[in-house]
Amino acid sequence: MGHGANVQPGQVVGISSSPGKEELSRAIAEAAYGRGAKYVDVVYFDPYVKHSRLLHADTDTLGWVPPWIGQRMLDLGELRAANISLSGPAAPGLMDDIDPLRAGKDRLPQVPEGLQVIHQGLINWTVGPGPTPEWAQRVYPHLDRAAAYDRLWEELGHVLRLDEPDPVAAWKKRSADLIDTADRLTELRLDSLHFRGSGTDLTVGLLPGSLWIAAAMTTADGLPFAPNLPSEEIFTTPDPVRTEGVVRATRPLDVAGTVISGLQARFDGGRITDISAESGAEILAGRCAVDDGASRLGEVALVDASGRIGPLGTVFYDTLLDENAASHIAVGAAYPDAVDEADREHMNRSGIHIDFMIGAPEVVVTGITREGTEIPVLVDGIWQI
Amino acid sequence: MGHGANVQPGQVVGISSSPGKEELSRAIAEAAYGRGAKYVDVVYFDPYVKHSRLLHADTDTLGWVPPWIGQRMLDLGELRAANISLSGPAAPGLMDDIDPLRAGKDRLPQVPEGLQVIHQGLINWTVGPGPTPEWAQRVYPHLDRAAAYDRLWEELGHVLRLDEPDPVAAWKKRSADLIDTADRLTELRLDSLHFRGSGTDLTVGLLPGSLWIAAAMTTADGLPFAPNLPSEEIFTTPDPVRTEGVVRATRPLDVAGTVISGLQARFDGGRITDISAESGAEILAGRCAVDDGASRLGEVALVDASGRIGPLGTVFYDTLLDENAASHIAVGAAYPDAVDEADREHMNRSGIHIDFMIGAPEVVVTGITREGTEIPVLVDGIWQI
Repeated sequence: MGHGANVQPGQVVGISSSPGKEELSRAIAEAAYGRGAKYVDVVYFDPYVKHSRLLHADTDTLGWVPPWIGQRMLDLGELRAANISLSGPAAPGLMDDIDPLRAGKDRLPQVPEGLQVIHQGLINWTVGPGPTPEWAQRVYPHLDRAAAYDRLWEELGHVLRLDEPDPVAAWKKRSADLIDTADRLTELRLDSLHFRGSGTDLTVGLLPGSLWIAAAMTTADGLPFAPNLPSEEIFTTPDPVRTEGVVRATRPLDVAGTVISGLQARFDGGRITDISAESGAEILAGRCAVDDGASRLGEVALVDASGRIGPLGTVFYDTLLDENAASHIAVGAAYPDAVDEADREHMNRSGIHIDFMIGAPEVVVTGITREGTEIPVLVDGIWQI
Repeated sequence: MGHGANVQPGQVVGISSSPGKEELSRAIAEAAYGRGAKYVDVVYFDPYVKHSRLLHADTDTLGWVPPWIGQRMLDLGELRAANISLSGPAAPGLMDDIDPLRAGKDRLPQVPEGLQVIHQGLINWTVGPGPTPEWAQRVYPHLDRAAAYDRLWEELGHVLRLDEPDPVAAWKKRSADLIDTADRLTELRLDSLHFRGSGTDLTVGLLPGSLWIAAAMTTADGLPFAPNLPSEEIFTTPDPVRTEGVVRATRPLDVAGTVISGLQARFDGGRITDISAESGAEILAGRCAVDDGASRLGEVALVDASGRIGPLGTVFYDTLLDENAASHIAVGAAYPDAVDEADREHMNRSGIHIDFMIGAPEVVVTGITREGTEIPVLVDGIWQI
């Protein structure tokens, strides 16, 4: 059995890529055909063309999405296809000269239909890093282009456990450990989680039906897949109306080419307010205003110190990697799989999903039971449960 | 007014490109937004991924086309969009290891819906060259990569008249001259054309309603555009059942990555037979078998020696350029614009359109009137009418 997207013989496979990631995209396509794929459709989304749009097009038109882009996702769902997305900023800093309020109106290449087919369990999918020299230079600014690119491949090989004799076996083991921890946390049926330290003092209310899960999923048809490569997190769907307090991000994040660093925010009655940052606050505020659920939490996730990303100390400017370095929360759409069916009507809904990191060894995570008892969960990055 | 696709304010613009053509694709997108485009959708079709498909996928599946690719073309038509395609082999020789009969089953990125919206006049469109270093090395094998790429840009700048003080004015003048010649030829109402010389002895029957036109078109809504950059030809829609004789191609042609050189063929009752070549005959034979019209002529075109491509003597391995170096014929779909409405039911129909060059200074073109009189049309590459 495969890992990651777990492409099956006869499947159509979508690959979401961008210019600069041809070599890896082609290798994945070749591997998918080698596994018996029927057809592999690689889409190279060009952020430079998006930049021209954001520079020139009428503001009123920036929310317009060509109908064929959403239709492609619906068709992939209909075909019970696989989908593989390559993460990593294709052109770091490219959007720095764009008004963030304008930038926030254009969410391409993301389309709501993508989340829709994921949440309906129609496709087996994964997201993995797609290194480019430009991305590498953002991550290692003190190295020259070639050295930075080599270093990025090397660190990615490590965090992807490709330096293990049997990487798939290593991931099965790590995944089983995370599933065990998630099951223990679910059994506690906590009322809320409390994050304290490093500028954060935040209570995240949970639903009675919140289920802690690791990133190991199955489609509606029962096909298992690993949606994130790498994955070091366990996560759940919180109560969207019971987040309170202040939060300070422990790592910068890249939203569609804009880096948001030094992010601080307040939550009142579940809704994010008072977003400030050293840079890029407006783009996050813009995204949080696109629909009613965009300002409420759809995910809370815990990452312990035994993962491979945190110890590197590298900021990758890529949510897939950085979120697996540290505990995090996300505004926007919740995962239906991470909540009991009975509570699914209460989970958050939105067209967006933006993660930001709030965890660090010095941020203590405590669980509060329905009876009010405090239970240590993560201290110094080590599980207490 | 613009030339080429003639993008209008508020239009959606499709760009058909491939990896390696990012710089030009982005410059065109930037220019289109500068002219007021609403949205520019660049599709980079990756021939290396197609190569993996042709290596591995079940033969029965090679004709399968993802529904969203045709739907995109129909949507572009519905939106009255512009479309700009970048020609030139993205990966010359890539398909040399593929069985031509398999290769012929996969016609992507072409889809029948593309010809459909063109023939309905729904989009203003153009095809222009998209240079890459790989293409340049195929054209100038004696030069190194950088020198070949420079030389390709230089020769393309010349044939595109970009070395004129006012390229658009130069094209308007050339286009007006070609339209005059086309009108004179239409007025002769020839019964057939005869090509003789250089191994060719071919009679191409014309329809009573055949109209000679230059590559200057208008959409159904009346918007003018130039569908080929460069264009040096006048062409018409022949009678698909009255081509007779033998033909020898005067230049090699590239069909989806396979070069066909030394092509010879016979026509009987309008249908191509006995296709032979030094290389690649099978791929053309495969394409000519895809539907009933694929083995009959949809176009006959004349090119005089005053164009800029022929005198260079360069074989570009790109139909857009090579067809404008020499007179040519095409199997497959005919252009409805090049025939009177009354005769449109008799024109050829097909899902393909493949041009090949049969003209040269030593190939004499003679017109034969309905009364049987012979009228010299092109001798030594010079118009006689």
